[in-house]
Amino acid sequence: MLEPIAHIGRDPGTGGYLRDAWSNADLELREWFAGEAARRGLDLREDRNGNLWAWWGAPSPDRPGVVTGSHLDSVRQGGAYDGPLGVVSAFAAVDALRRRGVEPSVPVGIACFTDEEGARFGVPCMGSRLLTGVLAAERALGLTDDEGDTLADVLGKAGRDPYALGRDDETLAAVGTFVELHVEQGRGLVTEGRPVGVASAIWPHGRWRFDFRGRADHAGTTRLADRDDPMLPFARMVLSAREQAERLGVVATVGKVRVTPGNANAVPGLVSAWLDARGPGEDGVRELVAALAPAASDVREESWTPEVGFDAALRDRLARVAGGGDGPAPILPTGAGHDAGILAAAGVPSAMVFVRNPTGVSHAPDEHAERADCEAGVAALADVLEDLCR
Amino acid sequence: MLEPIAHIGRDPGTGGYLRDAWSNADLELREWFAGEAARRGLDLREDRNGNLWAWWGAPSPDRPGVVTGSHLDSVRQGGAYDGPLGVVSAFAAVDALRRRGVEPSVPVGIACFTDEEGARFGVPCMGSRLLTGVLAAERALGLTDDEGDTLADVLGKAGRDPYALGRDDETLAAVGTFVELHVEQGRGLVTEGRPVGVASAIWPHGRWRFDFRGRADHAGTTRLADRDDPMLPFARMVLSAREQAERLGVVATVGKVRVTPGNANAVPGLVSAWLDARGPGEDGVRELVAALAPAASDVREESWTPEVGFDAALRDRLARVAGGGDGPAPILPTGAGHDAGILAAAGVPSAMVFVRNPTGVSHAPDEHAERADCEAGVAALADVLEDLCR
Repeated sequence: MLEPIAHIGRDPGTGGYLRDAWSNADLELREWFAGEAARRGLDLREDRNGNLWAWWGAPSPDRPGVVTGSHLDSVRQGGAYDGPLGVVSAFAAVDALRRRGVEPSVPVGIACFTDEEGARFGVPCMGSRLLTGVLAAERALGLTDDEGDTLADVLGKAGRDPYALGRDDETLAAVGTFVELHVEQGRGLVTEGRPVGVASAIWPHGRWRFDFRGRADHAGTTRLADRDDPMLPFARMVLSAREQAERLGVVATVGKVRVTPGNANAVPGLVSAWLDARGPGEDGVRELVAALAPAASDVREESWTPEVGFDAALRDRLARVAGGGDGPAPILPTGAGHDAGILAAAGVPSAMVFVRNPTGVSHAPDEHAERADCEAGVAALADVLEDLCR
Repeated sequence: MLEPIAHIGRDPGTGGYLRDAWSNADLELREWFAGEAARRGLDLREDRNGNLWAWWGAPSPDRPGVVTGSHLDSVRQGGAYDGPLGVVSAFAAVDALRRRGVEPSVPVGIACFTDEEGARFGVPCMGSRLLTGVLAAERALGLTDDEGDTLADVLGKAGRDPYALGRDDETLAAVGTFVELHVEQGRGLVTEGRPVGVASAIWPHGRWRFDFRGRADHAGTTRLADRDDPMLPFARMVLSAREQAERLGVVATVGKVRVTPGNANAVPGLVSAWLDARGPGEDGVRELVAALAPAASDVREESWTPEVGFDAALRDRLARVAGGGDGPAPILPTGAGHDAGILAAAGVPSAMVFVRNPTGVSHAPDEHAERADCEAGVAALADVLEDLCR
């Protein structure tokens, strides 16, 4: 099912994907989405924040729709499934409903959220955060990518109006229920021996930028005693983050580092490091960041998402329906953030369906889902949609 | 004197320079060099490796010249003086000789070496290493920059013939003596209270790439115990490098780091770090690298330059002449590599003249030399050239 887009943004050397928001690859994926919508006679809309919506039936404030979907952008060197599986499965589930002759009593929508991964501008779930107003347009527009281009520049180049960005109650009101199908990002379903599961909650999680400032100097002529080398406190922070995370029962990751000026023969003047931290409770995560902060010159919170418990009634209904003939689907927590979590936090009844990932690997090329499990995911999603739009 | 080129490659935000070899800034500086040579009626030659030579009089194998000069490329976010001061002073010294009515008995050359800093391809003194044959053309051509372009690609785009690269005995034979003037990269002359000094030796120094391999994974869904995160051994290496350097009396710097994939929300799969190490003796530097290597997946030596003691007779002659009326100029060692060191190691009698740097800062925008000291440097260089080409 993912075959038609498998080549887009793929690094031939590693097999990983490079699908930054608003990159050429992303624009090509958006074209593909529009084509799939058109083929099915769905009504395509791009909202003020660049999120795409393909509607089967016209939603209105007093007749909101049942929406499914995910995103098409990727982390850098990501896998083929994270995001696209949810979008492709949404189209396939609509096809299945039509084959079954289902005539939905409410509109059915397929969503593709913009910049879910935050690979380019550092803020994940940008499209849904803007939509729901938890991220202010002014802040988003000033974010810069690695080239120093602001989101405003990038949107302008992509032919979008940066000034349109912002909270969009009208679009949001059209979403009565949101169900996101996603490849599992761990091995919970492998352990359970089941192809499909349902999410219980998303851990609270955040991202912080730690700046360590020192003094740029020559690597050969500056005595050790005269140096103010920010690489040293940065290295201590990396080791301390692991120790503190173990102590507090959370996870902490430093996955992105920027060294300025970045010459092999110069003591750096600045090391910036991004800390991603999540855990079953907010207190542990906050305590971790507080323990690490004093050693840095500056710490900025780039994003924070409180714990999101999905709608319990919806979750149990999904588990019952998605379980097929094998009893209720297993219910699993997740450490990953998703647009479904942003919508849930904004008061939209939301839920997630997971598809088994035999490797458990995520955000890397080894991420995988077997074809049979993907088909089970589509069948479960179709059952869920049929149940919800009856 | 540096005014006409002060704008080229300057980052307006930081005041630092970005003059990678074969970048637009570098090509513009080469144009400037050609213009300065033409204005003085000097004969301009670009050798097989991209080094520029402006000759006053024609050198031949049995009548080699006295050559002075330096380089025009910079480290990233470097200062205005490192390299250009030596080139500008060379032109100014020729002007001074002509004003004095000196008619040199041997040709006088002004050299501008290509890619001295190694900012782009990781190998410093590329032009002089290729010229002297210590770096093989095949190895150089395969080096890649941050964009993944090889030197061969880059040379082709700059209109140069990559296949011409390589050892160039004819060009080298034209260099009877080489004197490089350079801004001091420490505060030795400040301590001595003198504007101009002479180099005794260049410390042995090298650059190594340390690769730490792990497994890329999701930052939220992968348990700490399941991770193979290469950021941790990398951080331990940074701290250990400082400890070992202190113990061994050498200097060690990690100034460049590359994290793959480099997503804030992914455990990295690979961390590459560049170690620069130098010291008064080879043993200490080698012991440092050997102590750090076992923790890395792979360690590659990118460059190694043994200690270079400059020609003692030439050094003493320079110190006598360059001292002006204040007695012999001070003789200082240096931890920095230079093209003069590469030529000296290849058997060319070579020497260096240093100009006082009040900040002692190098490879950063704060690098500085007072105008009066620059003029003293030119006067000393003119005296030295007059003495050598009598």
